[in-house]
Amino acid sequence: MREGLILKLSCPDKPGLVSRIASYASEYQANLVEFNQFTDRERDAFYARLEIDTSNLDISQDDFMAGFSVLGKSLDADWHFRRLPYRMRTAVLVTRTDHCLNEIIWRAQLGEMPVEITSIIGNREDCRVIAEKAGIPFHFIEMKENKEVGFQDIDSLLEEQEVQLVVLARFMQIMPEWMCEKYQGKMINIHHSFLPAFIGANPYRQAYERGVKLIGATCHYVTSELDAGPIIEQQVERVHHHHSVHDLVRLGRDCERSALAKGIRYHVQDRTIIDGHRAIVFPD
Amino acid sequence: MREGLILKLSCPDKPGLVSRIASYASEYQANLVEFNQFTDRERDAFYARLEIDTSNLDISQDDFMAGFSVLGKSLDADWHFRRLPYRMRTAVLVTRTDHCLNEIIWRAQLGEMPVEITSIIGNREDCRVIAEKAGIPFHFIEMKENKEVGFQDIDSLLEEQEVQLVVLARFMQIMPEWMCEKYQGKMINIHHSFLPAFIGANPYRQAYERGVKLIGATCHYVTSELDAGPIIEQQVERVHHHHSVHDLVRLGRDCERSALAKGIRYHVQDRTIIDGHRAIVFPD
Amino acid sequence: MREGLILKLSCPDKPGLVSRIASYASEYQANLVEFNQFTDRERDAFYARLEIDTSNLDISQDDFMAGFSVLGKSLDADWHFRRLPYRMRTAVLVTRTDHCLNEIIWRAQLGEMPVEITSIIGNREDCRVIAEKAGIPFHFIEMKENKEVGFQDIDSLLEEQEVQLVVLARFMQIMPEWMCEKYQGKMINIHHSFLPAFIGANPYRQAYERGVKLIGATCHYVTSELDAGPIIEQQVERVHHHHSVHDLVRLGRDCERSALAKGIRYHVQDRTIIDGHRAIVFPD
Amino acid sequence: MREGLILKLSCPDKPGLVSRIASYASEYQANLVEFNQFTDRERDAFYARLEIDTSNLDISQDDFMAGFSVLGKSLDADWHFRRLPYRMRTAVLVTRTDHCLNEIIWRAQLGEMPVEITSIIGNREDCRVIAEKAGIPFHFIEMKENKEVGFQDIDSLLEEQEVQLVVLARFMQIMPEWMCEKYQGKMINIHHSFLPAFIGANPYRQAYERGVKLIGATCHYVTSELDAGPIIEQQVERVHHHHSVHDLVRLGRDCERSALAKGIRYHVQDRTIIDGHRAIVFPD
Repeated sequence: MREGLILKLSCPDKPGLVSRIASYASEYQANLVEFNQFTDRERDAFYARLEIDTSNLDISQDDFMAGFSVLGKSLDADWHFRRLPYRMRTAVLVTRTDHCLNEIIWRAQLGEMPVEITSIIGNREDCRVIAEKAGIPFHFIEMKENKEVGFQDIDSLLEEQEVQLVVLARFMQIMPEWMCEKYQGKMINIHHSFLPAFIGANPYRQAYERGVKLIGATCHYVTSELDAGPIIEQQVERVHHHHSVHDLVRLGRDCERSALAKGIRYHVQDRTIIDGHRAIVFPD
Repeated sequence: MREGLILKLSCPDKPGLVSRIASYASEYQANLVEFNQFTDRERDAFYARLEIDTSNLDISQDDFMAGFSVLGKSLDADWHFRRLPYRMRTAVLVTRTDHCLNEIIWRAQLGEMPVEITSIIGNREDCRVIAEKAGIPFHFIEMKENKEVGFQDIDSLLEEQEVQLVVLARFMQIMPEWMCEKYQGKMINIHHSFLPAFIGANPYRQAYERGVKLIGATCHYVTSELDAGPIIEQQVERVHHHHSVHDLVRLGRDCERSALAKGIRYHVQDRTIIDGHRAIVFPD
Repeated sequence: MREGLILKLSCPDKPGLVSRIASYASEYQANLVEFNQFTDRERDAFYARLEIDTSNLDISQDDFMAGFSVLGKSLDADWHFRRLPYRMRTAVLVTRTDHCLNEIIWRAQLGEMPVEITSIIGNREDCRVIAEKAGIPFHFIEMKENKEVGFQDIDSLLEEQEVQLVVLARFMQIMPEWMCEKYQGKMINIHHSFLPAFIGANPYRQAYERGVKLIGATCHYVTSELDAGPIIEQQVERVHHHHSVHDLVRLGRDCERSALAKGIRYHVQDRTIIDGHRAIVFPD
Repeated sequence: MREGLILKLSCPDKPGLVSRIASYASEYQANLVEFNQFTDRERDAFYARLEIDTSNLDISQDDFMAGFSVLGKSLDADWHFRRLPYRMRTAVLVTRTDHCLNEIIWRAQLGEMPVEITSIIGNREDCRVIAEKAGIPFHFIEMKENKEVGFQDIDSLLEEQEVQLVVLARFMQIMPEWMCEKYQGKMINIHHSFLPAFIGANPYRQAYERGVKLIGATCHYVTSELDAGPIIEQQVERVHHHHSVHDLVRLGRDCERSALAKGIRYHVQDRTIIDGHRAIVFPD
């Protein structure tokens, strides 16, 4: 990734928005490498993502970002700048299964996802080996009867490590409301069904009982309502009557890995904007 | 399709089933063109479909079918023979939209589905034109406040025309329980969502509100529980945040046409066996 | 489709392009409904498509389009305006099979594709019935030993009817070079394979012999090199060893219909820009 | 996997085959867990795969297998028995990239593929680390100007370790004809294109230049004709004009991993039968 900036912005729709935003950039010799825009006509809202090459900028990046606030305020906008290149500080929470974790580590190593995995946190010891092989610290947090203690320990770890993104990579605990709120828009989950079908526990068993012909996985932002947060990505796989629940688990793993990897990639590249119950995604 | 027989069979699992069934066929010089079998280990049940070439049969087809009952009873089986070639007498029920109807007519004309469309029944007049262009009788049945009268009229038509399969091709009325029971395993619906997500009315609106990244359509047998019958086929299509409900309707039409066409084809080729809440499908 | 304009543009890349183009629009109170842009870094080229709401334009559409030429020339651009709403005058060329034709007619009637089918031209009589049922003139053009006569007759028809788009909907004749050149960027073909695999005749037979596990169809612009023009859309379908060539033909029809329909839709909505051997497609 | 046997068989088609094979099994109290059959009507050939539960067998497995030869010979069949459970001794050949290797190791560890990876052989050192982390011996074989020496070293290793399956997991060397012949039906390659498109070097660059809208990967048996062996599995992924060659490489990795993993799984479960240029695959 080149040096530059990403600008994400949302505001009420009005005429001339593209012109005003693009003109601000070109005024200071910033070059737009990628420009994505979406006008939601149902809500009269405007959303944009700009990838900006700042190599010829005739002011500093800081001044460029600071100066934008005049325009941003006049548009009544929410906006966010990100400096490139960057790697997002990410914690991965796991329980037993390691396929999602393995996928994240592998893609991070390959450079497919600009994340720095600060730690792997497990409420079981199962994933310690894979963490250690990858040279990433593993933290065991026991979830006893009073789970609140465990969640506070997790929160302390996240705080201490200045984590920017929390990934629930088949973490089999329901997050408390206060954590959902605290990490709103910064906590991503992979649910092993094609949401909103099969919310909650044992979705593969539910899918088997219902006799569906496609199973799926859903990568979504965590909100306090279970499995109801904004969806970033979904994947499906065809199944047949002869597949047992065990087979669905096996086939579903591929959906989970793929959906989670794409979801994280979109998030860390600032390609997502949360819009109420929905996520706007400008895919790459 | 060649001359021959299809045998569909289900029974409790026990050793030697394939051998005994296949031996019965070969004893009378019947040749197995296709043999599909499924053992449900969770329920200890056995299901099979045989496509049988009877051109060298040394007894009559009638005797062959009658003679099988000794074996069938000893296996405690449910079974069903179908003579080939055949075309299943089929009624298509519609309301306003015609894309599913158009697809069925087109595929029937091409010979992709061995159906004879006996009639098109609409509770609106919208599809009369397409029916008449295709040379198929159109029956308008008004669904007034007392819908029961309408359903009885439909039933009379189906009886009169000796209909073997009823296809609800976007028929926007909920079938009464007595009809669901009467036409159990003989009535196929296309639901415009990826069931069990978005049961009931306006699934595309529901999908839009939820912000899913894939929409779908489900072809299933009708049971008295709404949108809960055994699923024969499902199709999905990727959607994006910029798609309006209107776009989802447009994109969903392709899923609906494809899922319904495949579902009907599997049914009329006797490739489906209903097993409680699930449908076993031996695809071709 | 609302009243407005579509602007398609390509030019050498340079800083400030988005700003200058968007500013031209906003200067005259034109509102950008949709803005798609692509910078080809390998060739330093810039491509854009703008969908413009002109309901508040403070000059005439004609003046707006004429006035753009100053900017367009200074950018060394190729550009093209289209008034909305419009329906593209389209001729469909066919031979025997009618599934692609049927699909185009059906989608045009539904309003999915803003085309006006001016005529259906066949070198066989097979599709006359479907044309007449749809109320579209059918022209039989015999392709005798000297095919040149036939192609000149087709060209005269296209000229006479002021056709803007020629669709080869399983037209089983190789177009002469002069027609490929004359209708460059205005002639779309559907090839029944996953190009560049299986160029030329009998691709389903070729696919069967090769034992591929997926078959496909490709919608592309016609150029004088056989099956080598810029690809607009491709679709695939899974196949198995038990599928005969006849089955591949059946399954492939669905790919052909879908790929052709999407390809035409992208073209008539000005969502495609030809870039040498490739087609840039801004999908909707 | 339970104790039992897999029987794979191919022979000229004739009436009564299913009955005779199934009867042999049931005569000795062998129970058919899964029975797949395919009759190739174009070549009058019969193919079958039986998964047999031998827990109630009233003779030894050895006698059961030996006794089958009378029937097998009378059917003029080729057949093969495999004892369950088993793990196939497998060598993985690599060069630089490790995503396919990583996928195989991970799935083998999970038990998705009944393989025992005896060794990882590289003509570069890049994959040594991943091999060592997984606790699998890594052998570096230098491919110098006279590559023949290298291939003979590889062959010696394979012999020594009694390897039953050779997987070319992005091994960037063309195998010599003698090795293709020696390991016929036992050597699987992953080619990073949707074969038969883009045979040979740099398929992603070729795909980019051609402007295809879907890229793919093909898992196939190696024969002496380059990239022309029987295809076991293919996967595709949608791409867009804005994807660079580098993006295609990234997106293609997912196709490669998936197609190779499925291909190996089908092979080691004896779900494939080579039939000239094609592979019959009974998927699970």
